[in-house]
Amino acid sequence: MSATVVLLADQVLTLDAQATVHAPGAVTIEGTQIRAVGPPPARPTGDVLDLRGCVLLPGLVNTHTHTPMWVFRGLTEDVPRGEWLTGRLLPLEKRLGPDALRRSALAGCLELLQNGVTTIADRYGHMDAVATSVEASGLRAVVGHSLFDRSAASDLARSEALIERLGTDPARARVWAGLAPHATDTCGPDLLRRVRQLADRTGARVFIHLAQSEEEVATVKAGGAAGCASYLDGLGLLAPDVVVAHATYLTSAEADLVGARRTAVAHCPSSNAKLEGRVAPIARMRRAGAVVGLGTDAACCSNGMDLFDEMKVAGLLNKVAADDPAALPALDILRAATSEAARALGIDHLVGTLEPGKRADIVAVRTRGAHLQPWHDPVANLVYAARGSDVAAVFVDGRVVVRDGRPVELDVERILADATQAARELVDARA
Amino acid sequence: MSATVVLLADQVLTLDAQATVHAPGAVTIEGTQIRAVGPPPARPTGDVLDLRGCVLLPGLVNTHTHTPMWVFRGLTEDVPRGEWLTGRLLPLEKRLGPDALRRSALAGCLELLQNGVTTIADRYGHMDAVATSVEASGLRAVVGHSLFDRSAASDLARSEALIERLGTDPARARVWAGLAPHATDTCGPDLLRRVRQLADRTGARVFIHLAQSEEEVATVKAGGAAGCASYLDGLGLLAPDVVVAHATYLTSAEADLVGARRTAVAHCPSSNAKLEGRVAPIARMRRAGAVVGLGTDAACCSNGMDLFDEMKVAGLLNKVAADDPAALPALDILRAATSEAARALGIDHLVGTLEPGKRADIVAVRTRGAHLQPWHDPVANLVYAARGSDVAAVFVDGRVVVRDGRPVELDVERILADATQAARELVDARA
Repeated sequence: MSATVVLLADQVLTLDAQATVHAPGAVTIEGTQIRAVGPPPARPTGDVLDLRGCVLLPGLVNTHTHTPMWVFRGLTEDVPRGEWLTGRLLPLEKRLGPDALRRSALAGCLELLQNGVTTIADRYGHMDAVATSVEASGLRAVVGHSLFDRSAASDLARSEALIERLGTDPARARVWAGLAPHATDTCGPDLLRRVRQLADRTGARVFIHLAQSEEEVATVKAGGAAGCASYLDGLGLLAPDVVVAHATYLTSAEADLVGARRTAVAHCPSSNAKLEGRVAPIARMRRAGAVVGLGTDAACCSNGMDLFDEMKVAGLLNKVAADDPAALPALDILRAATSEAARALGIDHLVGTLEPGKRADIVAVRTRGAHLQPWHDPVANLVYAARGSDVAAVFVDGRVVVRDGRPVELDVERILADATQAARELVDARA
Repeated sequence: MSATVVLLADQVLTLDAQATVHAPGAVTIEGTQIRAVGPPPARPTGDVLDLRGCVLLPGLVNTHTHTPMWVFRGLTEDVPRGEWLTGRLLPLEKRLGPDALRRSALAGCLELLQNGVTTIADRYGHMDAVATSVEASGLRAVVGHSLFDRSAASDLARSEALIERLGTDPARARVWAGLAPHATDTCGPDLLRRVRQLADRTGARVFIHLAQSEEEVATVKAGGAAGCASYLDGLGLLAPDVVVAHATYLTSAEADLVGARRTAVAHCPSSNAKLEGRVAPIARMRRAGAVVGLGTDAACCSNGMDLFDEMKVAGLLNKVAADDPAALPALDILRAATSEAARALGIDHLVGTLEPGKRADIVAVRTRGAHLQPWHDPVANLVYAARGSDVAAVFVDGRVVVRDGRPVELDVERILADATQAARELVDARA
């Protein structure tokens, strides 16, 4: 393809401020950027890619993932509250080294791309190794190496090295570095002050688990804080450059505080329901000013990294939590997987909508299957009826990374063979 | 294919009493029946169908659908409580005649088959016309013409004609007739007594909406009954041959009564969450003795007729409702879409498990995609990670009705063209 490509589709959902829909529509890509969005041009300049039968929308943005945990899918099911993390997950995590995690992460990235995700916020241990998989996958990503009190010096050094290697500016790299303190109960004030300073010095965004479990809340309170959110706030870590994941067990006052500080929230409804039997107080945080994006969490939490699925689940769970079937309308949900998710990650100047000047991160979704017809309401159909498997094509930075539902540049069979080998090593080690 | 076919697969989930798994496994079909289930035979007799890369499980059983409502998908979104049925749905329903409904129903059946559903309990108006679509689709089905007070004489006549035409014995016909009084607020005691008598005389199973909305509860109470469930009970319609759908707004005492009578319940978690912001008291009804199967409800409620999706949603919503992440374990959910759903419809002597002597209603699900690997836990993966689009093959009565994910005997393009034409007529009539 030449530097200029015109995508023609049945519909284009821009998800700009007006949520403009062009039907039929076209997106013109020039290099890495979107040059024009609108009705199909009478005389297209450049190559034409015929995506009729599809709707185009901004690439999906997943605000909370752990791609290396792909390998654990199905190993931590139906666990009583309080037992999941320390009782079930940690013993598994100890069995895998960086090479297995790198292989698992590439399979996770593959799954995400096939589901129409173009950007992820990924965090885990051994992120130096894992980042090579994320880079190789073609995804746009911010990656963070998890920081814990128990390994603070080493984790800080590795985090700084990652920042050195990748930078922190999403405008200058497809994969860049963030800072990823693990959680409010595993990171004491000293470590979190260091993180805040490092973030201020480098411009790195901060990613932290917040009030995911009752044990986390109990530990933080035992340490003398009023709650997990006020603990973070006292350290300057409720702020617009901080993305808190889950926020499951916040009190109403804490939810208001998260919102008042314009904190970004990664809402993981499937994970919270499956691992905790809970719905996070998203409506309250949004009302108070928080920026909320959706996240799938890891493959052993949710149990799939499909934001189409997560959108439906977000709608259903939040309607139940609100005791109101009109709560969280479909357009808000679609934005939480695109434009608002991009805001949450601080990259809304680059991606999240289809507008001239933005990076060409675009998903084409097939609309003509029996489960997506009639196409009366594109937004409702995308949120409640579409699946990752409906993704026909994915573009990141103007490059086709998925076409006809298959990754273009990745050796799918080899990636899955390598990653399932890691899964066998894991189970053999356990046996 | 000859009369005997051996299906070879990576795994066979029988969902018999022991939930036996054969890996690798084989199912031998002779005519319409399953002759053998177990490890692959050393020397297979008959044709061999190689389904490696797949897991075999019983065809999914959908206990509550309205296939003609396929045409309304996306037209009733995010509606405030109390406005959905009379404010939004009824005005749409008035616009369509039997021919449009027949075309819409065939598209709905197509969607269901592609999602691995082999049996449905379908009910709506104009079921005499709709039943021809259900029959043509290849699905196994019990169909009922909706009965209302406002048209009782005609609805009774049409229901009796349907019983006359199709019979009521699932062992003798692939599509048979049930009795489908609409709901507890739209069917008075006289009509429901007639239904009970007709059911006793003909052996037809009874299908009724129960406590789906607050308005229904209010109307029934205004009529002098203590509640919707006790109203039905007084008419002999809480019983093992009655399938109540939704049961959303039951009190605990009513849920216990439904269970005590061994009533069958069609649990439609997506629909209840989306239209009412509620989770039905399923755990309580099950504990009290109810037989619970899953249902997708209509395409404008849920908004897709995919029982894989419904299984995941059932798990997440019921964990939240129970405030317990260990609630409703994955195997119970898979049974609610297969063996228990078959019990709910009174056809567990025929389908719902893979056992010798049962009808050969079988689904083959592809397991090798990135979103379904690793395959550590087949049950968890099927419930929480699989999608209707993973269905490779579907057998009903031993006949291949879907292969390579495509219906074998249906003209997909024509069916969808006819049904989307009905959708255009609907919108034009509204405009």
